[in-house]
Amino acid sequence: MALESRQLSLNTATVRERWNLAQAIEGCQRHGIGGISPWRDKVAELGLQESARRIRAAGLTVTGLCRGGLFPAPDAAGRQAAIDDNLRAVEEAAELGAACLVLVVGGLPAGSKDIAAARAMVQDGIAAILPAARAAGVPIAIEPLHPMYAADRACVNTIDQALDLCDALGAGVGVAVDVYHTWWDPNLERAIARAGAERILAFHICDWLVPTTDLLLDRGMPGDGVIDIPRIRGMVERAGFKGLHEVEIFSAGNWWKRDPDEVLAICTERHRTVC
Amino acid sequence: MALESRQLSLNTATVRERWNLAQAIEGCQRHGIGGISPWRDKVAELGLQESARRIRAAGLTVTGLCRGGLFPAPDAAGRQAAIDDNLRAVEEAAELGAACLVLVVGGLPAGSKDIAAARAMVQDGIAAILPAARAAGVPIAIEPLHPMYAADRACVNTIDQALDLCDALGAGVGVAVDVYHTWWDPNLERAIARAGAERILAFHICDWLVPTTDLLLDRGMPGDGVIDIPRIRGMVERAGFKGLHEVEIFSAGNWWKRDPDEVLAICTERHRTVC
Repeated sequence: MALESRQLSLNTATVRERWNLAQAIEGCQRHGIGGISPWRDKVAELGLQESARRIRAAGLTVTGLCRGGLFPAPDAAGRQAAIDDNLRAVEEAAELGAACLVLVVGGLPAGSKDIAAARAMVQDGIAAILPAARAAGVPIAIEPLHPMYAADRACVNTIDQALDLCDALGAGVGVAVDVYHTWWDPNLERAIARAGAERILAFHICDWLVPTTDLLLDRGMPGDGVIDIPRIRGMVERAGFKGLHEVEIFSAGNWWKRDPDEVLAICTERHRTVC
Repeated sequence: MALESRQLSLNTATVRERWNLAQAIEGCQRHGIGGISPWRDKVAELGLQESARRIRAAGLTVTGLCRGGLFPAPDAAGRQAAIDDNLRAVEEAAELGAACLVLVVGGLPAGSKDIAAARAMVQDGIAAILPAARAAGVPIAIEPLHPMYAADRACVNTIDQALDLCDALGAGVGVAVDVYHTWWDPNLERAIARAGAERILAFHICDWLVPTTDLLLDRGMPGDGVIDIPRIRGMVERAGFKGLHEVEIFSAGNWWKRDPDEVLAICTERHRTVC
């Protein structure tokens, strides 16, 4: 059964080079896209209340706020600064009515080779913001990033690892499942089943290109790469996930250069035909 | 306790742009390096018997032959061709007295998005060569590659996944543990302990650079990146591994351009001081 564009959500990173948040909201309306997941810099630019007002007026579901996290730091002051910033992000997510605050948890602190210590800092950081997140009704979505980002962006690299964190932290924490970060995982199906409906807070789509020419900014449009997106969507749906499918494409050399209206037209077409 | 250069092995990929195998053998002797792990193209260039003769005469341990694998293919003829080539690699490894034949197992066949099918092809391919490998006394080392190579080089991406294959295949198969491919794995310590002395057939070292500018050819000299090599060496040693430490650096922009004698001098110094 073909997917409806109302089931698609636009992560604003996909059009960030050429559209501000107001333009992205209008773009979603023009293309019949049902949801949006804004980045905090774009929200700040438009203003938090104005962003919330426009998104509500457009009838868009906020599938997430990107992003909190980045907890590890070389010293206690740095770690506290990260926690303070995450507390502000929780407030913003609440104001926007976001389904979750997405965490890119952070990698190794500068000068460190101790990934176990970085992982402990992540757990401590989430624990520190969790009471406020629960009080605000904002679920925290740990996004496991591909292992190629373990050093510099996120030392949580599999869904199982994220779920172990969720188990340790208790209610109010779940995972964001991104096909780009997880498609290779030999344990993917079991991990998604383990997560279950309550803990799958977001589902992100794009594609893995062959070859991939840049570790960060060479992600593909669904259908242009090797990820079997329908298979992974089937896994999250069997686990009970009923949320939107959020398209998030970092692509400095291709999609970021194009007319965002063309990008959204292709996103909705690919969502319908290959996702 | 500082490591001795006799405990170091040179994977010839490290100097492949500027040295043939005869030069690499002589280079190991000059630098007091105890082992070598040649690539098949370099062996073919020098001749199999001549390669074996020179390596023996130099008193070098052959820590592995690189490489077999690349089993998945779109059709049966392609898969059989891969098996036939791997059977030749087993013979070459036996002639060289290699401690193991290292497998880079292969990624998705052209046009496929079915990673489960590719993984089944890998298992079938290894099963097909295993009787000959056992008869020749050549252990087969599955090398899990970093998940960023899942599409195009190796769909076996964690030590645990490789060990599941070993369990299914029986005697004569183990793993090559490469710090570059595995350092991020939250389950690394348990997986190495699970492998045990009998199944850790090789231990490869290099480093993960931040930033990494190329997915394949931007590996670092030990000490220049973020991998805690002594910690991982401790894991394999606690598991009972007593083999050499094989340095393997793919580095088109840096180390491959330098004088190989300078590279080996730095390798032995870093091996002594940071590994």
